[in-house]
Amino acid sequence: MIYFFQMILADIGEFGLIEQIQKITGHCSDLILGIGDDAAAWQNEGGITLAATDSLIEGIHFEWNFSNWHDLGWKSLAANLSDIAAVGGKPRVALVALAMPKTTLIENVLNFYKGMSELGKAFNVAIGGGNISDSPQVNITLTVIGYTENSAGLLTRSGAIPGEKIAITGAPGSAAAGLRLLHEKPGLSDKSARQLVQCFLKPYPRLIEGLLLAEEGVKTAIDTSDGLIADLRHILKASRVSAIIDTDKLPVAPLVEASFTYTQALGLALTGGEDYELLFTADDATIQEITGRLKTPVTVIGEIIQLQPESVKLTGKSAGCIKLKTEGWKHFA
Amino acid sequence: MIYFFQMILADIGEFGLIEQIQKITGHCSDLILGIGDDAAAWQNEGGITLAATDSLIEGIHFEWNFSNWHDLGWKSLAANLSDIAAVGGKPRVALVALAMPKTTLIENVLNFYKGMSELGKAFNVAIGGGNISDSPQVNITLTVIGYTENSAGLLTRSGAIPGEKIAITGAPGSAAAGLRLLHEKPGLSDKSARQLVQCFLKPYPRLIEGLLLAEEGVKTAIDTSDGLIADLRHILKASRVSAIIDTDKLPVAPLVEASFTYTQALGLALTGGEDYELLFTADDATIQEITGRLKTPVTVIGEIIQLQPESVKLTGKSAGCIKLKTEGWKHFA
Repeated sequence: MIYFFQMILADIGEFGLIEQIQKITGHCSDLILGIGDDAAAWQNEGGITLAATDSLIEGIHFEWNFSNWHDLGWKSLAANLSDIAAVGGKPRVALVALAMPKTTLIENVLNFYKGMSELGKAFNVAIGGGNISDSPQVNITLTVIGYTENSAGLLTRSGAIPGEKIAITGAPGSAAAGLRLLHEKPGLSDKSARQLVQCFLKPYPRLIEGLLLAEEGVKTAIDTSDGLIADLRHILKASRVSAIIDTDKLPVAPLVEASFTYTQALGLALTGGEDYELLFTADDATIQEITGRLKTPVTVIGEIIQLQPESVKLTGKSAGCIKLKTEGWKHFA
Repeated sequence: MIYFFQMILADIGEFGLIEQIQKITGHCSDLILGIGDDAAAWQNEGGITLAATDSLIEGIHFEWNFSNWHDLGWKSLAANLSDIAAVGGKPRVALVALAMPKTTLIENVLNFYKGMSELGKAFNVAIGGGNISDSPQVNITLTVIGYTENSAGLLTRSGAIPGEKIAITGAPGSAAAGLRLLHEKPGLSDKSARQLVQCFLKPYPRLIEGLLLAEEGVKTAIDTSDGLIADLRHILKASRVSAIIDTDKLPVAPLVEASFTYTQALGLALTGGEDYELLFTADDATIQEITGRLKTPVTVIGEIIQLQPESVKLTGKSAGCIKLKTEGWKHFA
């Protein structure tokens, strides 16, 4: 029995807290996926139901000088769809709990729903209602419920095996680059800067990619919303393995390379959060098959190795320039 | 096309806003229940999935001088289970989005999960994870996902027919009485005061009752979380009918009668919110059948009549003493 007398959240962090919560909610062992995975999953008569929830909070996850309500609607749905993508599922319905001051302009709220509906229509996700509350600040919590057709197809964090390659969709770091441009060069209005900012404000969830991974027999995946290295560590911890990442192989978006030094760009790719790429592990043949079937680029960036405790080793000619001081986005840090 | 230039939420209120949102999310017509009902419902291969979401916000829905974290965990789950009860479903999994300051004591957060798990175990609801965020104030958003076995069994707000009786489970007003005691007589510690306060802090959702209503063929129900009259108005609006309520028949809890004047007690029963009783409409024979099968008392309090626009008429010898100034809990009021 551990006591937490007078300890605060900042002392143990989000993941320390999650471990303690898992001990309390022990009656949930009939779930296929539960606390600690991207989405919850459970067996029903006709298949497996999936659900994921995520919050965007004013001043913590977004700032009004960068975001508008329409983009926020899009982004809050995208974050949840990405969690469904990360377990290889299909989203079906979104519920919205919207807390906001009573002085909020109706027009803004409706723009929020328009942004959400725009993305919802693209992926056939219905807005199933929810809850509207008064609150001194804006807090948006979305829950998406989805399904998979067969239990074999679920992607989890815990299936990585030594010898498997580590691969990633797209070019991680683009969203973090967009956010940094907003902060450091707010006046920048050339096309490439605008495109990076869009990666941050209106990310696309990798739903088609997640479904294909599951279909091709991939067992282990995560979305990179906390940053590539931080999310890789979640896989390593759950799978009890280590990883080598070759920084020379990291796909860095040309737009990011054009706006930052090479070392900065690598840093953004490795530790920048807010991306919705899928990081996964599989054998060479499977990755080749997936690469052939997807339009989205897929790049092998490293390998799973047998080593305890879990660790990430960087190789490649620029590895020495990268210090993994920050492991990505951390709550309560 | 209506324009909302410079209009704020307080101008059109929660329900005005919901109507506008329904127009935007028009691509959701394949849902069985959607925006405007207690829970969302949609057809899956093996049955109907249900989902409901609700928020409790510090300073708006609860105050720390009255509530502790354990009770809050219980209550936030109870509110969602009540929404599932109101559509006649079985809850299965809860997701929790918990936003709180990083200085929050771990012990408090774990007590929150303990309170939630206590109620979850009682109704076989698993805690399926969720999201934890940093936030200047506490915002608890729970989403419960459930199911029904057959679509015939769904309770909605829109099926009330003239001639049907209006019935209610339990004794509405007890929770509101408890809240008023906390505010007006905080020192009161006799047993009956404590029991009323418990009705407010740790309400029981009427899940068994909701399931039975659906099984007995009831079509129309709602939970009284906004207050009896306010929630009755939701039914009347959705069903395009009116109602007569006989105040002499209202079941007022003896505990409430003992602590308040008769008129105050009636007022609490009619307009007090935070209750999780089920208000429903059905014919006499069905209500008699239900009464015989339930331990929870069921009382006929009025009748649905054909009258437009929707209105509520109070009869009974105390009807004159009741002014329906307040129609129950209102957001953004």
